[in-house]
Amino acid sequence: MMVTTQAGKIAKLKIIPLGGFGNYGKNMLVYECEGKILIVDCGIMFPEEEMLGIDFVIPDIRYLEENKDRILGIIFTHGHEDHIGGAPYIWPKLRVPMYATNLTAGLIEVKFKEFGIENVPISRFNPGDSLKIGPFEIESFKVTHSIPDSVGFAIHTPLGLIIHATDFKFDYTPIAGQATDMGKLALYGQKGVLALLSDSTNIEVPGYTASEMTLAATFDQIFRDAKGRIIVTSFASLINRIQQVLNSAHKYQRKVAVSGRSMENNIEIASRLGYLKIPEGTLVDLRNINRLPDNEVVILCTGSQGEEYSALVRMASGEHRQIKIKKGDSVVISASPIPGNEGAIHDVVNNLFREGATVIHGKKVDIHVSGHAGADELKLMISLTKPKFFIPLHGEYRHLVQHAQLAQKLGMPAEHTMVVEDGNIIEFYSADEAEISKSRVPSGYVLIDGLGVGDVGNIVLRDRQAMAKDGIFVVILTVDHRTGQIVTSPDIISRGFVYMRAAEDLIHGARAEIKKMFVAHNHKYPMNWEYVKKALRDEMGEYLYEKTQRRPMVIPVIIEV
Amino acid sequence: MMVTTQAGKIAKLKIIPLGGFGNYGKNMLVYECEGKILIVDCGIMFPEEEMLGIDFVIPDIRYLEENKDRILGIIFTHGHEDHIGGAPYIWPKLRVPMYATNLTAGLIEVKFKEFGIENVPISRFNPGDSLKIGPFEIESFKVTHSIPDSVGFAIHTPLGLIIHATDFKFDYTPIAGQATDMGKLALYGQKGVLALLSDSTNIEVPGYTASEMTLAATFDQIFRDAKGRIIVTSFASLINRIQQVLNSAHKYQRKVAVSGRSMENNIEIASRLGYLKIPEGTLVDLRNINRLPDNEVVILCTGSQGEEYSALVRMASGEHRQIKIKKGDSVVISASPIPGNEGAIHDVVNNLFREGATVIHGKKVDIHVSGHAGADELKLMISLTKPKFFIPLHGEYRHLVQHAQLAQKLGMPAEHTMVVEDGNIIEFYSADEAEISKSRVPSGYVLIDGLGVGDVGNIVLRDRQAMAKDGIFVVILTVDHRTGQIVTSPDIISRGFVYMRAAEDLIHGARAEIKKMFVAHNHKYPMNWEYVKKALRDEMGEYLYEKTQRRPMVIPVIIEV
Repeated sequence: MMVTTQAGKIAKLKIIPLGGFGNYGKNMLVYECEGKILIVDCGIMFPEEEMLGIDFVIPDIRYLEENKDRILGIIFTHGHEDHIGGAPYIWPKLRVPMYATNLTAGLIEVKFKEFGIENVPISRFNPGDSLKIGPFEIESFKVTHSIPDSVGFAIHTPLGLIIHATDFKFDYTPIAGQATDMGKLALYGQKGVLALLSDSTNIEVPGYTASEMTLAATFDQIFRDAKGRIIVTSFASLINRIQQVLNSAHKYQRKVAVSGRSMENNIEIASRLGYLKIPEGTLVDLRNINRLPDNEVVILCTGSQGEEYSALVRMASGEHRQIKIKKGDSVVISASPIPGNEGAIHDVVNNLFREGATVIHGKKVDIHVSGHAGADELKLMISLTKPKFFIPLHGEYRHLVQHAQLAQKLGMPAEHTMVVEDGNIIEFYSADEAEISKSRVPSGYVLIDGLGVGDVGNIVLRDRQAMAKDGIFVVILTVDHRTGQIVTSPDIISRGFVYMRAAEDLIHGARAEIKKMFVAHNHKYPMNWEYVKKALRDEMGEYLYEKTQRRPMVIPVIIEV
Repeated sequence: MMVTTQAGKIAKLKIIPLGGFGNYGKNMLVYECEGKILIVDCGIMFPEEEMLGIDFVIPDIRYLEENKDRILGIIFTHGHEDHIGGAPYIWPKLRVPMYATNLTAGLIEVKFKEFGIENVPISRFNPGDSLKIGPFEIESFKVTHSIPDSVGFAIHTPLGLIIHATDFKFDYTPIAGQATDMGKLALYGQKGVLALLSDSTNIEVPGYTASEMTLAATFDQIFRDAKGRIIVTSFASLINRIQQVLNSAHKYQRKVAVSGRSMENNIEIASRLGYLKIPEGTLVDLRNINRLPDNEVVILCTGSQGEEYSALVRMASGEHRQIKIKKGDSVVISASPIPGNEGAIHDVVNNLFREGATVIHGKKVDIHVSGHAGADELKLMISLTKPKFFIPLHGEYRHLVQHAQLAQKLGMPAEHTMVVEDGNIIEFYSADEAEISKSRVPSGYVLIDGLGVGDVGNIVLRDRQAMAKDGIFVVILTVDHRTGQIVTSPDIISRGFVYMRAAEDLIHGARAEIKKMFVAHNHKYPMNWEYVKKALRDEMGEYLYEKTQRRPMVIPVIIEV
């Protein structure tokens, strides 16, 4: 099963990123050893700006489908969307065993249920447990992240130990008690680490990420001072943050109601599995919340990213069934914007202010800490594990390069820091020799739009982009199938180009022009409709551009009757 | 000319914002006194995210057009696009005198020339000069901003003094020597100020904005350490920043070439008018730059916002004719992202890293300072001028509210802090009494798309948004005009919905379905095409949604032959 490379060397270990290298989200990585494949994570990402109308993006798994019989399973680091969200799309095509910690497994199961898939084989393990999957001996180690039950993996291979560390931070006072296992990491470093793969998300953030604990004082202060209702929004998966809100509410004798399906689901799972401690009598039904005095009310809700239809967005626009924003409300946005969401969040904040609420958001008050390690923590990770090779993961290209440069500053030789993107193949020939292969596996973005997975590609997207910019201009010509002459006046259907009712002159002129163009070209190549249509498209496009300096998509249609 | 309000009181002074209150950009404000109108600024803004295909946005000036004979003129605070960019569109409709400082006037003239408008009447004044325009006695006062020759206005009215302060910061060591005139402001405060209008841009930024001077050390360090070429991008209007780059280049014996039209234009005007001192022999032609050794080269270019076709974007994508990015290049992005541009800027940075450059960007290194006052400077402005009324300007709604709250924290009564949005009318009845009128003037966004000014409205935008999301699906039915029966098989034209070649089954099924629907509805109301088309649109929409969970815009077309 070993593959001979172009250099004639034999790769004893391969690392193949399929997602999260050169982009955020859709995290997925392949380890390949003795002909067997181990997959880590299976994430989903939000579409980029230019991917108009797309719901989600998942990794391209053609390489896995072609090598299905060699796959041993998928192990998950934690339960965030960008690590588990692709599973319900991808697992049915692979049907391999899955391995996850309790909370992560619970969240995966909910996803599968939403897709109508029952009885998926997920083996549960506890953070710190060891697993043997084919040739891979895997030790999990605890890490702190913004969701409980997060782990990293120490993977023993014949060539040495690989540390897979994502996502993590070093938090000495995490709310829910799980600190990153520095002892284990240091021990690995002592024994010798072949390669470290480490989270590049916050490489551009200097210093250390603050502890979740630092927020407790802020929440207490807000809860102590607020005279009216308190409305808190955060990521639904940020269980520790939800715990803090519950704690402060309990302390200041407030009841908490929850609004937003993902928030409700996650609270249910996390409390059922013991990751969230709900003080008795604190949680109340949203429908009963208006009966309580304002200063006894907390509403925990979705919408921290300004998502359409989320609870907070509906409140801000006056469309929430139970909650109307009013003067005296304090709204706390306990999250940072995911790049691209800034505009939507600002709209929500503006609307909340318009309705009379006080909004606590942004960086003026400490109401959010990141779940990812800052640059100095990343140095700590490298210094503890002392890897021979360093592979930055999870980030856009600039993050990966800067993370590699950081490792070089710590003394690693540049040729041992490997910046790779999705589809690259890192080949290890021995414990001392590795290189990035010149060949690649299929990679890239598989777009999900409604029920379609992968059917929307560049052509459909380009059409959407063109119509988004300048609209469409359809010209319908009905011609006699014997004579090739126009039967009726051309019909023009246009949307998103000009306001038709106010553009009668333009349309009138265009119609006359089309007839002339048609006659001329039909004369040149009689009834060669492909030729005539192309000529009409080009010339009508120029005509409209000259009149408007807009370039609608021009589509001539010729109907023979 | 005085207007009786609903309360029967007579407004002796009115302040009417037409742009920049509740939004950024397109700044424009009307002062009205003794029946005369004075306009301050005339800006342009970039379209918001949902304004697909729109080039720019300018203020709605219907109120001004209706009251043209009462307008005395437009005075400008400074030469940024969001304060002068609307002039070439709006001035031709008003044809009133304009007043501006030298650099601002120069920049306005360039704009008008680009529009083919010559000989516009701009009266020039120096910062600190006084002007008498009808009943308005206006003293200009120097302010520091990120473009030279910026001023604020102290406007004497029969009811008292109004301070119009935007955009400004308090910089005790500005590069080009113009500090905000604190002495004058304090003096006004001593004499008594009726109302202060002050810039809310950075209300969410605590503390003081750093001085432009603080960047000199960073630039010197970068220029000292760089072994290869240095490529600096910034806002073309940031003349002081350009001065710093020229200074550091001169100090470290490098030549500077300029790439990007707006950068070239602004350097030409600013140096001609004496606002930019170019050390002799420093500036060289871009075409000769490749003959110099890399460590003697600086390239100053446009593209700090990741603008399509800008010099830096073309360099990053390998499409710049003269400059190819290579290993050893240091690229400095000396600007902060305008909200909404983050994605485009990150793409550029990633591409530059891919080409081997080192990119200095973001907040890790001090390479940019804002031109707007931080929260503590805003307190200073209020404390110096001690106004009776406070009107926050220039910001989204949340900025205005928070700025008003800041004034209240300084002791101003809430009813004297007036949060207004574009189209509101503030009426002063006496030196002690003012209120926000219940009536409004027309306001809002006038969209510019190609040659069209204001012709693209909500209908066109909604169509663009719909097609951007799920595409379009045009169904063409040719029917016999006597019998009402279908003559040929329905034609389907679709773009941006599904990839047609891979969706033959769907299209085939849809075509069969359309025939059935047509027959049924044509049977119900024979040849009532409006009814049939509506029914087809609804039912075909549902059919396609059920098959794809996408909602393309469905357009049935019936052609009688």
